[in-house]
Amino acid sequence: MTVQTLDDIHELAQQLRVDSIRCSTSAGSGHPTSSMSAADMMAVLMTRHLRYDWQRPDNPANDHLIFSKGHASPLLYSMFKAAGVVSDEELMTRYRRFGSRLEGHPTPILPWVDVATGSLGQGLPDGVGVALAGRYLDELPYRVWVLCGDSETAEGSIWEALDKAAFYHLRNLTAIVDVNRLGQRGPTELKWDVDAYAKRVEAFGCHAIVIDGHDLGEIDKALSHAAEAEQPTVILARTRKGRGFSDVEDREGWHGRPLPQEMAERAILELGGERHVTVTGPLPEAGTPRAWPDGEVSLPRYELGAKVPTRLAFGQAVAAVGARGNVVALDGEVDNSTHLEEFAKAHPERYFEIYIAEQHLVAAAVGLQVRGYIPFAATFAAFFTRAYDFIRMSDISQANIRLSGSHCGVEIGPDGPSQMALEDLAMMRAVHGSTILYPSDATSAAHLTAQMAERDGIVYIRTTRGAYPVLYGPDEAFPVGGSKVVRSSPDDQVTLIGAGVTLHNCLAAADQLAGDGIRARVVDLYSVKPIDTQALLEAAAATGDRIVVTEDHYPEGGLGSAVLDAFNDAGHPVHISHLAVRDLPGSGTPAELMEAAGISAGQIAQAARDLLGG
Amino acid sequence: MTVQTLDDIHELAQQLRVDSIRCSTSAGSGHPTSSMSAADMMAVLMTRHLRYDWQRPDNPANDHLIFSKGHASPLLYSMFKAAGVVSDEELMTRYRRFGSRLEGHPTPILPWVDVATGSLGQGLPDGVGVALAGRYLDELPYRVWVLCGDSETAEGSIWEALDKAAFYHLRNLTAIVDVNRLGQRGPTELKWDVDAYAKRVEAFGCHAIVIDGHDLGEIDKALSHAAEAEQPTVILARTRKGRGFSDVEDREGWHGRPLPQEMAERAILELGGERHVTVTGPLPEAGTPRAWPDGEVSLPRYELGAKVPTRLAFGQAVAAVGARGNVVALDGEVDNSTHLEEFAKAHPERYFEIYIAEQHLVAAAVGLQVRGYIPFAATFAAFFTRAYDFIRMSDISQANIRLSGSHCGVEIGPDGPSQMALEDLAMMRAVHGSTILYPSDATSAAHLTAQMAERDGIVYIRTTRGAYPVLYGPDEAFPVGGSKVVRSSPDDQVTLIGAGVTLHNCLAAADQLAGDGIRARVVDLYSVKPIDTQALLEAAAATGDRIVVTEDHYPEGGLGSAVLDAFNDAGHPVHISHLAVRDLPGSGTPAELMEAAGISAGQIAQAARDLLGG
Repeated sequence: MTVQTLDDIHELAQQLRVDSIRCSTSAGSGHPTSSMSAADMMAVLMTRHLRYDWQRPDNPANDHLIFSKGHASPLLYSMFKAAGVVSDEELMTRYRRFGSRLEGHPTPILPWVDVATGSLGQGLPDGVGVALAGRYLDELPYRVWVLCGDSETAEGSIWEALDKAAFYHLRNLTAIVDVNRLGQRGPTELKWDVDAYAKRVEAFGCHAIVIDGHDLGEIDKALSHAAEAEQPTVILARTRKGRGFSDVEDREGWHGRPLPQEMAERAILELGGERHVTVTGPLPEAGTPRAWPDGEVSLPRYELGAKVPTRLAFGQAVAAVGARGNVVALDGEVDNSTHLEEFAKAHPERYFEIYIAEQHLVAAAVGLQVRGYIPFAATFAAFFTRAYDFIRMSDISQANIRLSGSHCGVEIGPDGPSQMALEDLAMMRAVHGSTILYPSDATSAAHLTAQMAERDGIVYIRTTRGAYPVLYGPDEAFPVGGSKVVRSSPDDQVTLIGAGVTLHNCLAAADQLAGDGIRARVVDLYSVKPIDTQALLEAAAATGDRIVVTEDHYPEGGLGSAVLDAFNDAGHPVHISHLAVRDLPGSGTPAELMEAAGISAGQIAQAARDLLGG
Repeated sequence: MTVQTLDDIHELAQQLRVDSIRCSTSAGSGHPTSSMSAADMMAVLMTRHLRYDWQRPDNPANDHLIFSKGHASPLLYSMFKAAGVVSDEELMTRYRRFGSRLEGHPTPILPWVDVATGSLGQGLPDGVGVALAGRYLDELPYRVWVLCGDSETAEGSIWEALDKAAFYHLRNLTAIVDVNRLGQRGPTELKWDVDAYAKRVEAFGCHAIVIDGHDLGEIDKALSHAAEAEQPTVILARTRKGRGFSDVEDREGWHGRPLPQEMAERAILELGGERHVTVTGPLPEAGTPRAWPDGEVSLPRYELGAKVPTRLAFGQAVAAVGARGNVVALDGEVDNSTHLEEFAKAHPERYFEIYIAEQHLVAAAVGLQVRGYIPFAATFAAFFTRAYDFIRMSDISQANIRLSGSHCGVEIGPDGPSQMALEDLAMMRAVHGSTILYPSDATSAAHLTAQMAERDGIVYIRTTRGAYPVLYGPDEAFPVGGSKVVRSSPDDQVTLIGAGVTLHNCLAAADQLAGDGIRARVVDLYSVKPIDTQALLEAAAATGDRIVVTEDHYPEGGLGSAVLDAFNDAGHPVHISHLAVRDLPGSGTPAELMEAAGISAGQIAQAARDLLGG
């Protein structure tokens, strides 16, 4: 049926409630009451405002719907049933079951879901990224609708998102906050004080509309207003958790609990029984995204021996890769340090300044890639720790994002430990499906940056502050998963493995060892994940399992750990001499700090001598 | 001299500017212009409002001063010189030098510094924690003054902090925002729109005062007002970066750049030359913190074989440990899941609800421990990823905080991957000086929780959702750094290592293997860091280096990695059969998901058989 009247919509809302109860009771887990509070709003939205071609979720003109309160998945999936794209049987037998696409919290395994949610405060920031794409890149009139919970407004990331939404005048974005007063453990901080919410929203530059979230007419009017607003709109809807079933409505203790069978039956009765209505909402007007023509990618070329920081090579290479029209870049207000400013100069229209808000930096990238763009986001490597939850969730979102972290390790010198990334390799390696690149020179940095654009998943490049000699000619290839033997002889006695600045220290160590008549093989492990196990095994075999691994990172989870894992996975356990940063560093020159950490050339050479028994 | 007049204070402000220039020029790095914009405010503060006994930084009645804009360290250290506690010589020869306490960004190596800053948006949240201690625990009238940058207000953590400051009515907290319009790369998002800032601050429930940050009289009045306000105060001070030296004042391109010698000389001339004034500000009134008497800690006791979730044992144990008067707890609105609610019931006066704001959860804990309290903060293990930058900085702050993460791994079942901690061990292990505990049963969880209170640094306990049998009698000891051999015989053939749920799977696997006549040793590796290397070596020796390690975590950086590192560090490389979660999980039952991940009892038994060649 094509829903027309508010009475029809009320019926749909009751169906969404009933189905939310039914599917969660059938699964024995889930959040029915958090679904029931928002059912009226979603019923109005899907019938009258969401311009969406359910048969063609890849239609670029479609609106976008994101459940930032991902735990309301029963409601979302019940909407999918009402849209006719998920069967009642699937909803009742597959929700939260093993191997099902109807997971406990939404993921893009479902074609109508853009991003995974469930870690609160992320759906709205992601939605800002989608809206950026709509307004500034696709130049299509689609709207982004985000359903938020009230509890999640305590997350700072919500305010980072609204701030950026207002800054970028994203009038195509509407957040609907389901102010049902009750969080998981009891009342929320602001309870039903929708005016307090509204004041905050307005102060952050967005348009606030306060409504009764169960009044279909008010909802309809608010959604219409939102579609016409000049700024992003936040609808603050006063609702009642568990709305429609008197036993649980507005009662504590019912978060994340399915109704027992007997209660479920009474609830369904009170809600007017089961319904199996399929509804049709508005379709998007036909539209094609703006075409951003591709130019030719001409990577920067560096002279052997010239001293060039890898962060600069990254910046120049990403500017070159930006010749491809779908490449975009995002800065955390440090682009003169990360050298992402090179992209800004070359492609200002595809450059987004996110200021100092690293959570949003990653979230906006996730939103942009929803629309097929290839985002590069850059900040200091240390500050990506701020966004770890967002990076982790990006994997569940099946997002393809590229992150560049500069200023890694003690090598940065006088700024001190707050600015030194010493945990980033561990953090990024532990992300499922991630790729981690760590170039030592400008040539490899440029080539690896180019490949980042081609690679799916979360791709991280770690760059170094200081300028070190170019080691490779401009036409050398650096396949992801490879490595380079930078120095070798037919009778190498020991292998020195490094990446970034420590590779240069390894080379200097090899020189020192050569003075002693010791021949060292030096391996550039520029691809930390995936790792070149074959090259590691060959080096081990060539040098009698004598291996020194040196990293400008804490000892856990970084380069040394990657090497140990590779040998272990290959069934060839090897003892490595593992030089890493083991004490909390302070300020100093790079040389002083590397010496203090025990990762200098002299210390690498000594570790090699120790392995050789001398 | 005792400063009295505004003219005197102006002289002090000029001295602070001159010294900021001198020390950064001498070091060849640093942020003089970011210091010069705030010099007038700090001069008024330290002479007339900051009640601080510079000779007794441990005086509990002292006010607290936190530079959230840690890069203004030249200004802070110049204040220390003006207070007479750092010599001009130290400032000029040691700033940012190797081994110096005057690091690039402030750290508590200095007795007048509470917390490390330098990652923006953290000093204010930390300050909220100190103010919580002052108002609700110490019950002393000290004030917390926090100098913020304008760029860092883009961090959501600033708004989490102001939200909590208002919620807890922290009228003892004053933030001073140095709105100098210029960030690192150019103008900030809001530039000099101090009214926009004020609107946000008021909307978040704090008292906003807008001033000219270079008008000493206005500054003085604002600081006096702040001391009398009923709510936390945020002073929004319009300033000019590089104020006082016309060549750089309000000019772009001078962030984080010391003045070259020649410019420095002209700047000092323009600022009226060098001065070496020492000033005395107000002293605190004598006061002693409220005494929170200690009761007797009586740990919960569990019956062997009873099924008790480790998260519940944590909650009951931390409630018991709360008998010690200086133990406090903080919840991220999930205390009915983490079972921190047990503490809330027992000790409501020392319980802080932070709602869903994990960054603030950790920051408030850091602030509370500044005043000697022993904070336990709990949320889902997965959501500590949200606070990784704060955890990383906690180490630099020399903070002693205890974190409890529940719902780890695929074992949680139907909620799906967004709620599963699968990277937390890697993340926490990589933090310098961290301790990581991962109990398998209620008894060990309780004992380890008790020890957390005693242990310095960042101490993390990982707890499991489901209920599993109690394995140990109530009087068993579980030293940090130890392990337990749960099953063994004189002729064990293989070692099975697990922790948490996988230990129970290892025990079931051992039963299966016993059916085949294979004797397996089972090791409970409850202390992941530090790790019991001796026990690992013994197990390896006893079982012919045949070892299976199983973890409910991604393969990188977790339990398996800790074991490999331990063997490597001991110089005894061992191949381990490493069972871990290698694919992105979905929803399902715990048993289905563990089977799918390859970490079930049957799969452990098979891995053992494979090691035994059959």
